[in-house]
Amino acid sequence: MSVKDEVLGIARAAKEASYGVARLDTAAKNRALAKMAEGLLSASAFLKEENRKDVEAATAKGLQKAMVERLTLSDKVIGAMAAGLKEVAALPDPVGEITGMQKRPNGLMVGRMRIPIGVIGIIYESRPNVTADAAGLCLKSGNAVILRGGSEAINSNNAIAKVLKKACSETGVPPGAIQVIPTTDRDAVLEMLKLEDEIDLIIPRGGEGLIRFVVENSKIPVIKHYKGVCHVFVDGSADLDMAERIAFNAKVQRPGVCNAMETLLVHKDIARSFLPALYEKYRDAGVEVRGCERTREILKDATPAREEDWGAEYLDLILAVKVVDGMDEAIAHIARYGSLHTESIVTRDYNNAQRFLREVNSSTVLVNASTRFSDGFQLGLGAEIGISTTKIHAFGPMGLEELTTRKFIIYGEGQVRE
Amino acid sequence: MSVKDEVLGIARAAKEASYGVARLDTAAKNRALAKMAEGLLSASAFLKEENRKDVEAATAKGLQKAMVERLTLSDKVIGAMAAGLKEVAALPDPVGEITGMQKRPNGLMVGRMRIPIGVIGIIYESRPNVTADAAGLCLKSGNAVILRGGSEAINSNNAIAKVLKKACSETGVPPGAIQVIPTTDRDAVLEMLKLEDEIDLIIPRGGEGLIRFVVENSKIPVIKHYKGVCHVFVDGSADLDMAERIAFNAKVQRPGVCNAMETLLVHKDIARSFLPALYEKYRDAGVEVRGCERTREILKDATPAREEDWGAEYLDLILAVKVVDGMDEAIAHIARYGSLHTESIVTRDYNNAQRFLREVNSSTVLVNASTRFSDGFQLGLGAEIGISTTKIHAFGPMGLEELTTRKFIIYGEGQVRE
Repeated sequence: MSVKDEVLGIARAAKEASYGVARLDTAAKNRALAKMAEGLLSASAFLKEENRKDVEAATAKGLQKAMVERLTLSDKVIGAMAAGLKEVAALPDPVGEITGMQKRPNGLMVGRMRIPIGVIGIIYESRPNVTADAAGLCLKSGNAVILRGGSEAINSNNAIAKVLKKACSETGVPPGAIQVIPTTDRDAVLEMLKLEDEIDLIIPRGGEGLIRFVVENSKIPVIKHYKGVCHVFVDGSADLDMAERIAFNAKVQRPGVCNAMETLLVHKDIARSFLPALYEKYRDAGVEVRGCERTREILKDATPAREEDWGAEYLDLILAVKVVDGMDEAIAHIARYGSLHTESIVTRDYNNAQRFLREVNSSTVLVNASTRFSDGFQLGLGAEIGISTTKIHAFGPMGLEELTTRKFIIYGEGQVRE
Repeated sequence: MSVKDEVLGIARAAKEASYGVARLDTAAKNRALAKMAEGLLSASAFLKEENRKDVEAATAKGLQKAMVERLTLSDKVIGAMAAGLKEVAALPDPVGEITGMQKRPNGLMVGRMRIPIGVIGIIYESRPNVTADAAGLCLKSGNAVILRGGSEAINSNNAIAKVLKKACSETGVPPGAIQVIPTTDRDAVLEMLKLEDEIDLIIPRGGEGLIRFVVENSKIPVIKHYKGVCHVFVDGSADLDMAERIAFNAKVQRPGVCNAMETLLVHKDIARSFLPALYEKYRDAGVEVRGCERTREILKDATPAREEDWGAEYLDLILAVKVVDGMDEAIAHIARYGSLHTESIVTRDYNNAQRFLREVNSSTVLVNASTRFSDGFQLGLGAEIGISTTKIHAFGPMGLEELTTRKFIIYGEGQVRE
């Protein structure tokens, strides 16, 4: 069978299953999620065995140690996958909610009903735990899912999916609801991205290269973020102790993630009193500072920032620092170099706080808090399937509700158009 | 200047203007809308003169009479454009609304603020009044707009845009907020569709060919519907008088629009008592019926329906009719041949009504009412920028709210991640 036919067959099976999944009641979905969690725990020997093949191949290929670690399914990772599925079971079911019911002048009752999106394609890299996380969230929100993981995790992903599908069969969920593209052929992704009649939404998760490839080639709507170039702006009126805590946390607590700060903007009025102490803390933590000219007048031995530092996503212990004249320059800098991800202001000024919240166009805007809070769990969504910096459908962290849509429902009594 | 550079320049100007438009308060936007309405009325001689060039060119080219009529700017059409702008001014402003504010365990206050999408590209055909309608809706929702109309209406569209931009200048709205692609070069559309950094959303309006071209070539998110293959299902328990009124209205009242019925599904138990009287009415109205075999046992001289009739969007006085065994077959038929646009059930059965609303996946689902109500004005949105059958972002008729998105806003007191 050609890759094209194989992918089409998988997508059609997912579409067919999606009707059944959409109709499942909450209790049935929760039973399946609990069974999946159990299934993963009791199949841990099988999962680790299959995972070993991937790890050995990766090691033989000379993959970076950090990559191999991400790929590895330990008991701890398997336990976390199972716990994640149980947490998803405990979340409220978004499907079926009816809102905005209103009576029109002609007597029609018009409202909106929350429904699953249908079939969701997830295209991701290396971490096999995404297989279980994404499958659980899609099931809870009433969607069928097509999973396409990285080639380096193919055995692990197939093994996890096998366990999840078995749990579906045992609990009356159409097993077609969880589909894995079983081949590592890259053409399979291209074929997937053409199937707009079968797949309703694509969510790519991984590096910028993967995501650009998906956007470039997809006829199906894509929700994505390319990167997180997050800013903290320390305003002239900031509480400097608080600003130091936030700027340190946003850069250092976990530098390799998309909501870590990449550029620090500092109001010129407090730059001289603020930067030196923070700089020492950064130095102790191994952070390299790349400063604008005004920064380097204060921090003499900081690396000079170049044009490409503004807008860089380091994902590392490197930070660009710029001294700005005030709010206008800070907001303009973020508009020019930001990635619409997450920005924070540290200030005691009421008007500046409100203005920053209003005028910064990013998907998450904070006052007096670390950018690291831009995360589905931290913001109270209970889960996270990804983060969107596309303004369409969802903007910012996405939870279960973002895996649904709303249709109009109308109760009439025989009304016709005049 | 190359088409590429020209389009890029326009898109960048729109992007730049979008920041200013997003910050306008409601009163300023309403003043501009009122000025636009006045401007169109007082420029009617100029508009008709420019329009005459398009109409003459179209007539010379031998364009269909109906097309030439749609292209023509009469005093009535100009009056309607002005009235439309005033109506948009009277609608509530969706921008700035804050919802779902909640306190997290760590004290962070997390909510969502409704914001404009940014820059919206509208790609449309023939009717020049779309220029004013779309510009008005985008302005009211705080967006900049790039308008790309059909080549046959280029002089009319440029003239309308000129009047609208003048009204912007006179009322303090950045005139860059309304952009028209002034060339008819088709490459301009292709260039537009690449500019994902400048344009946030594309809404194509026109025939299926145009829309498929846009989806095929766009890197920017597209909200669209290809076609409306709307169904009415007359259930076995239907009030047959009501069913007749609805089935007649849905087909005949305005057959050329996307929410007109294209296929009538009839429960086998009432087909014999229901179809003959309706058939006579249809015949009087000039409707050609294309029936399945069971339909033709009852309506002997109906045209035999062929496979391609199911799923056809006639936009004309033609109707496909199928007798079905019941709900299951009706729902399965709609899932297979429908276009996710609009479907209606006529029934007196409570469970069937509820089941149809739940299980039919279309963007608008009605009980006991004509499909013709699937329209932003009829459903109470106050306006309509288009209809979406893409399940992402908006599903069904789209009004002002659908031209906005929501960002997370967070009030903190110095919180950092542990």
